[in-house]
Amino acid sequence: MTRLRIDLAYDGGGFYGWATQPHIRTVQGTIEAALHKLLRVPDHDPDEPLRLVVAGRTDTGVHASHQVCHLDIDESTLARAVGHMKVPAVTALEHRLQRLLPTDIAIHRVSVAPDGFDARFSALERTYVYRIADRASEVDPRLRGCVLHIDDTLDLDAMNRAAAMTLGLHDFGSFATPNPGGTTIREVKRAAWTRVPSRPLVPARDDVATHGTGDARDAARVCGDATGGYVTPTLESGLVCFTIVADAFARNMVRSLVNACVAVGIGKRDLDWFAGKMAVPKREGSTGPIAPQGLTLEHVAYPPDDELASRAEAIRAVRTLP
Amino acid sequence: MTRLRIDLAYDGGGFYGWATQPHIRTVQGTIEAALHKLLRVPDHDPDEPLRLVVAGRTDTGVHASHQVCHLDIDESTLARAVGHMKVPAVTALEHRLQRLLPTDIAIHRVSVAPDGFDARFSALERTYVYRIADRASEVDPRLRGCVLHIDDTLDLDAMNRAAAMTLGLHDFGSFATPNPGGTTIREVKRAAWTRVPSRPLVPARDDVATHGTGDARDAARVCGDATGGYVTPTLESGLVCFTIVADAFARNMVRSLVNACVAVGIGKRDLDWFAGKMAVPKREGSTGPIAPQGLTLEHVAYPPDDELASRAEAIRAVRTLP
Repeated sequence: MTRLRIDLAYDGGGFYGWATQPHIRTVQGTIEAALHKLLRVPDHDPDEPLRLVVAGRTDTGVHASHQVCHLDIDESTLARAVGHMKVPAVTALEHRLQRLLPTDIAIHRVSVAPDGFDARFSALERTYVYRIADRASEVDPRLRGCVLHIDDTLDLDAMNRAAAMTLGLHDFGSFATPNPGGTTIREVKRAAWTRVPSRPLVPARDDVATHGTGDARDAARVCGDATGGYVTPTLESGLVCFTIVADAFARNMVRSLVNACVAVGIGKRDLDWFAGKMAVPKREGSTGPIAPQGLTLEHVAYPPDDELASRAEAIRAVRTLP
Repeated sequence: MTRLRIDLAYDGGGFYGWATQPHIRTVQGTIEAALHKLLRVPDHDPDEPLRLVVAGRTDTGVHASHQVCHLDIDESTLARAVGHMKVPAVTALEHRLQRLLPTDIAIHRVSVAPDGFDARFSALERTYVYRIADRASEVDPRLRGCVLHIDDTLDLDAMNRAAAMTLGLHDFGSFATPNPGGTTIREVKRAAWTRVPSRPLVPARDDVATHGTGDARDAARVCGDATGGYVTPTLESGLVCFTIVADAFARNMVRSLVNACVAVGIGKRDLDWFAGKMAVPKREGSTGPIAPQGLTLEHVAYPPDDELASRAEAIRAVRTLP
């Protein structure tokens, strides 16, 4: 058996989440079906299950730019990926998957996983970003699939005071649906709201040579470079972004926290309410999850190769405690 | 009569271009239908034509982030926008249009146009950007509606040498379809290919206070900030972008130039071929237009208010010469 690591991205808009479900279009189901097809393994063959194990199970409509999963596969099955290609089997599988999958899934890389690697249990932390266009942002219809439009003005200072309360080890029971037998205790390492500065998409002409463009100068140039011409800003200029990093996330946790912060940011709830929700972890009376399209799983961090196995063992032990 | 200036954006993916056509979904047709509905003017009323005049007529599938059009409207018709709102008629029209239109069109602003303003004939220059993900870029499925994926490595130096040949006043007959009775002579003021630097979406933590982030330091931090954590890059990091600015563009001109530059960039054509196409303007033997989804009209520049009318007269004269 060989364990492969698959790095990938997807637009979640056309999927009912990650996890395979019968008769429903999911990311896992779509990739597993492609694997069965190109490796000529009959579907549901109990002797050759091609099953992906993922770092972050995303909900319906949630995107991923850098998702990670692993696949255990027989050497002889993997070898079928080569066909007439003159490349190693793993490279052949990467190319064929890239070509076979629909355009809303992109395979970044397929590689042989290092010893002890487990996409889910070896992971140290996950980074999610939620993107919002509020009244102070310019709405860009090209981004409507990955940015939530809120027709209100957000108080980022208040939202950051709420976000700061989530830092550290807490029971996020007010903001998450527990799995049966699981806990909602998680460690948040970073949580911050920022308005993306207005920056030029490409460096201004007179900066190309020197390759040093300061943000403050950038901002001043978005509507005019040294010669008075228009400079195109980056797509995300002016958007409000929430970045949250944690060891792991309970179900619905990011979207529920975002919804609670937005309720504070538009003045519908106050910081005392948020503090109460953090102090007494119960779902009743809390805000539910906000719309999925603004959310993207951006990164999964793993420890150095020689710590992969011990990390996986430690996490597996924690998650299976009574 | 009042002339209104309308600043707007749209995702062109769901439209058969800008210009109204019977029984087909176009941007102009969709907005004019909304205007007729909310101002209660019967469709095709010859006494009250609500017709938009646009700065840049975009083709099927082409986007606009900052399009400009104008509308001449009776004061009494405009007044119907107010309804129960306690705001000026122009503000009311802006709000109602924003709410009535589908999410693939965004109205940035509706304002009373200054004297002499003509969205098409007063314009000084138009800026278009074409976005490509090549083999050196990371493919992001969230952006597949506004970025073209090319499974090849682009030689940006060669493409920039081709682009440099387009600068100045030329007959772009090799790269454009002339309108009946029109010319394909245009003045290109800027044309450059750039790979977008990899930059963090939000400033790194220790820079938030000082608010000065250099590009070189940014690039080094995309995969790790001062504390070793992951920093999310901007959506366009690593993409190849073509920026072109001209007084105006002939039909299919930007997409045909992009296709010709890409042919040079992948080695299918050489620079001598491109130089020949610039020297002898004829459509035969030239590359056709590249796919529309990578193209966005990003900006339309107008002169100061006191030069609007004279600019419009001058351009109208040029365009109507025999």
